[in-house]
Amino acid sequence: MIPTQNNMSQEEIAMMNGEHLLEALHWRYATKCMNGKKVPEETLEKILEAIRLAPSSFGIQPYTVILIENKALLEKIKSAANEQPVVVEASHILVFAVWENVIQKKIDDLIYQTATERGISQESLHEERSRMESQLAFPPATNQEWAARQAYIALGHGLIAAALEQVDATPMEGFNPSAMDAILGLREKGLKSVVLMVLGYRDAERDPLANAKKIRRNKESLFIKM
Amino acid sequence: MIPTQNNMSQEEIAMMNGEHLLEALHWRYATKCMNGKKVPEETLEKILEAIRLAPSSFGIQPYTVILIENKALLEKIKSAANEQPVVVEASHILVFAVWENVIQKKIDDLIYQTATERGISQESLHEERSRMESQLAFPPATNQEWAARQAYIALGHGLIAAALEQVDATPMEGFNPSAMDAILGLREKGLKSVVLMVLGYRDAERDPLANAKKIRRNKESLFIKM
Repeated sequence: MIPTQNNMSQEEIAMMNGEHLLEALHWRYATKCMNGKKVPEETLEKILEAIRLAPSSFGIQPYTVILIENKALLEKIKSAANEQPVVVEASHILVFAVWENVIQKKIDDLIYQTATERGISQESLHEERSRMESQLAFPPATNQEWAARQAYIALGHGLIAAALEQVDATPMEGFNPSAMDAILGLREKGLKSVVLMVLGYRDAERDPLANAKKIRRNKESLFIKM
Repeated sequence: MIPTQNNMSQEEIAMMNGEHLLEALHWRYATKCMNGKKVPEETLEKILEAIRLAPSSFGIQPYTVILIENKALLEKIKSAANEQPVVVEASHILVFAVWENVIQKKIDDLIYQTATERGISQESLHEERSRMESQLAFPPATNQEWAARQAYIALGHGLIAAALEQVDATPMEGFNPSAMDAILGLREKGLKSVVLMVLGYRDAERDPLANAKKIRRNKESLFIKM
């Protein structure tokens, strides 16, 4: 399936990238049994980098991702995740936790970083700062949902990056956020957990879904052309 | 940058895929000026397929994606999207709209499809059906947020698929959802718009951000290792 790439045009390279993506998306599934094998550091870094590069509202990335490898801590996390065994069979667990609110310092930080890295003045970003200050002053519940949506874009990036690296990744919403936050001390950091990503390698012999046909709504049902 | 692929190992192929992904993520940005060029049908189909393959809670995909190309309709959408010119410079606009609630028929459909496509009995999916029926009976506001999060995973998939095809894609939350729903007749379909994806090709000469350095929180700020 993999063609030789010598002398390929931009269009041919794009086509090949797209084919690899769809192959990877067919390959991946929500793995429920993993074999404990570790994801190599270099591979992990690429998955994290894809998460880091995910876009977000105003580019503010209103979340922190907690990366957990420690076995004792994974055991505790399992207790907050309906005792799902895959949590301790994983190589790493990523906990996506959103900011409880957008404090002024976060906006200041982003303006400062943008000005510095682009070599422009902070004053030239005055309008952007004003828009953030007025539009991101959400009430707490709205803030959490806005921030969670941004985190889910990053989750989507992480899932794809893992699949392209032939690493299994399972998104997991079935956990107790309050218990998780307590275990990880997130509230003291102004954070709330919203979703997990379980990273590792499938144990295909034990996982009945490893070879099951992928079920997705068909095109005609999912898309409406207007 | 692109190595020859003859005789590459699985690891080498995975490494190359990962590198392409990061290159694509660096290449993409929230394009605000497009040139009106059309995305070819075959390319568009691959982007839609990546969206279709996105995972979701229970695999239920509680959203519909409306695909719009018609110029007159894009003009109307622009009026509901703060008059942002990029809307009518785009090739296509995708409107991600979530289900107002998970009606029993949607659960029945998924169970039927799963049983049929996997060649198993619907009875064998009894537990899965029960879990869906009890866990997806959300009050309306909670339902919308749960569904929106799922839609944002699919949005993340669409953004990456576009980038790998060298198509620009801008996520857009700056629009009036009620006005959008009215224009597209979504409420009658039990749908509510949550986010747009603007697809097309950058007009780099007009877009001041086309060559601006990408700003992202650094690794040390975004990730906490525990």
